[in-house]
Amino acid sequence: MATVGNVLKKRVCIVGSGNWGSAIAKIVGANAVKYNNKFETRVTMYVYEEIVNNQKLTDIINQLHENVKYLPGHKLPENIVAVPDIVEAAKDADILIFVIPHQFIRTLCATLLDKIKPTAVGVSLIKGFDRGDGTNIELISKIIEKNLKIQCYVLMGANLANEVAEEKFCETTIGCRDKRLAPLLRDLIQTPNFRVVVVEDCEAVEVCGALKNIVACAAGFVDGIGLGDNTKAAVIRLGLMEMVKFVDTFYSGSKLSTFFESCGVADLITTCYGGRNRRVCEQYVKTGKSIRQLEEELLGGQKLQGPATADEVHGMLKAKDLLEKFPLFTAVHRICTDQIRPGDLIDQIRNHPEHVFAPKTMYMY
Amino acid sequence: MATVGNVLKKRVCIVGSGNWGSAIAKIVGANAVKYNNKFETRVTMYVYEEIVNNQKLTDIINQLHENVKYLPGHKLPENIVAVPDIVEAAKDADILIFVIPHQFIRTLCATLLDKIKPTAVGVSLIKGFDRGDGTNIELISKIIEKNLKIQCYVLMGANLANEVAEEKFCETTIGCRDKRLAPLLRDLIQTPNFRVVVVEDCEAVEVCGALKNIVACAAGFVDGIGLGDNTKAAVIRLGLMEMVKFVDTFYSGSKLSTFFESCGVADLITTCYGGRNRRVCEQYVKTGKSIRQLEEELLGGQKLQGPATADEVHGMLKAKDLLEKFPLFTAVHRICTDQIRPGDLIDQIRNHPEHVFAPKTMYMY
Repeated sequence: MATVGNVLKKRVCIVGSGNWGSAIAKIVGANAVKYNNKFETRVTMYVYEEIVNNQKLTDIINQLHENVKYLPGHKLPENIVAVPDIVEAAKDADILIFVIPHQFIRTLCATLLDKIKPTAVGVSLIKGFDRGDGTNIELISKIIEKNLKIQCYVLMGANLANEVAEEKFCETTIGCRDKRLAPLLRDLIQTPNFRVVVVEDCEAVEVCGALKNIVACAAGFVDGIGLGDNTKAAVIRLGLMEMVKFVDTFYSGSKLSTFFESCGVADLITTCYGGRNRRVCEQYVKTGKSIRQLEEELLGGQKLQGPATADEVHGMLKAKDLLEKFPLFTAVHRICTDQIRPGDLIDQIRNHPEHVFAPKTMYMY
Repeated sequence: MATVGNVLKKRVCIVGSGNWGSAIAKIVGANAVKYNNKFETRVTMYVYEEIVNNQKLTDIINQLHENVKYLPGHKLPENIVAVPDIVEAAKDADILIFVIPHQFIRTLCATLLDKIKPTAVGVSLIKGFDRGDGTNIELISKIIEKNLKIQCYVLMGANLANEVAEEKFCETTIGCRDKRLAPLLRDLIQTPNFRVVVVEDCEAVEVCGALKNIVACAAGFVDGIGLGDNTKAAVIRLGLMEMVKFVDTFYSGSKLSTFFESCGVADLITTCYGGRNRRVCEQYVKTGKSIRQLEEELLGGQKLQGPATADEVHGMLKAKDLLEKFPLFTAVHRICTDQIRPGDLIDQIRNHPEHVFAPKTMYMY
């Protein structure tokens, strides 16, 4: 049997089975077959059990090989095995791919603690922060590391799930500091249409995936007011500079080049031109309804990630007396909480720290 | 009389009076009044004389204070004085703002040589390259420097002229190595709605303004084929990385951070989502007509800048045996010259150097 380094074939478990989880399962399942010298062919997928058309969702997936609820119209490879028990799904895995809504991560970790291989590694595809203690947001990968006592890396990028499932060409970014593991993760994820770049900057990669949604809210306000292309580009750029500043402030040692990866500019662009944060915030301006009301009407009550992230970031920046250095993030929070009007956005960023005439603090390399 | 350093008030001449030239004249004229301790209030604008409604365009501008042909609906400050003779307009100027189509720059320089102040400085707002000898493109600012024997700096950004004239909020980037001049240029250009960042990286700033149009062509092909948001983001990002690589290869010493300025990501974004290079290339796919035919039909015979720049860049890269390092630029050129089909674009960039699994060459800081 082929070995990798001196390690036997890796078992993979996908923890989650929503839209994105199912799309990534399609890729991972195929690659586990393709590289069957590196991976066990059988890939488990933890599925939160639901009844769909009088049948268990796990049964449907295992019989039809299709997640008819969350990724209808796309066949999953037959080696993807849906398992309704998270411990059962994860216990033998060497690689755990986390792709569940972020509010469930602590409970999930509590359930899995000491039930998984101590040598397992995680890869988080989860976007968004954890509120932490209210003044220090926590990264989801760090929660996994602390609460499961394993290493956890990340994957983020301009990856709308349906387009990935349709095998349209795109890129993604893996943040992984482990140089031996990185090529293996790349083999597990990369296809001719899903191109992987691995960087070591895990934290920057993950932070981009959360902060972009704040910027997308600002882009939505600009669209709603009808401020035009120049203004939108300026707002997106200033948002990007605040993302860079945020990472530089709280995750020093990160590299500027990481923001050029798919997780950075590319994901930011798609989110600010497509994406529901942009859309709902555009409607916020056009309808005058509250964010909460729009979440009800447009998202079936699901919470919009941008305003939530803006709130978490605001708590942290305020506690550290840094609001002035992040006028765009701050303005988005104040608009979403009805403290200022969308029309005030531009006044809030007109004298942005970026526009101060001084030798620039070179953030990071 | 107030002095700047030990220098008397600066005289400014705007060399050009098209759409962008007129929009910038609106700003420069107002700032010459606002900072009348630093600048002569009277600002000359070289206007290529035309007859409009049986009247000379210069007379119309000087009487109505409106460029009715190229920026209708916007009043110019009354201190902007249209002058049909380029030597007359430029001879006393300390600051020459060049904003004419790039194909006229050599003739213009020949006309002005030895007719201007030897201490004058130029600021080029001209986008695009000069073909040079066919294997070494030349920057417009360098042509001005060589042919007029003055220093020439640059201004580029996400600045659609009409939106600037409407005073919609945006940013711009000035590339200027002269630390004493930079604050003066900033005062001349910045307004509450037109925010300036000055960087020293003149060459990177100028190169961005030309190369973005190649990337916009690729974005247009993607739109025409209907490849979706992920693919478009990936194509734009790979284009950006080739812009970085190009600058790193031919203009070493440039900084990665410059690509985060308005001249970089911001201008690239607007050009790839709006902009006529994108639009014409989308139509190229949808109609099957040639670029030349579409230039006739959609642009009244004006040449589209993206394909021309792609051709110039291709000549240079080919001569230096570097085509493989720039697969996106190369593919755009081949599509525009009907050597490959737009549908081949993705295959050309699927194994992009960016996707090679290796410690990345850190381009620049």
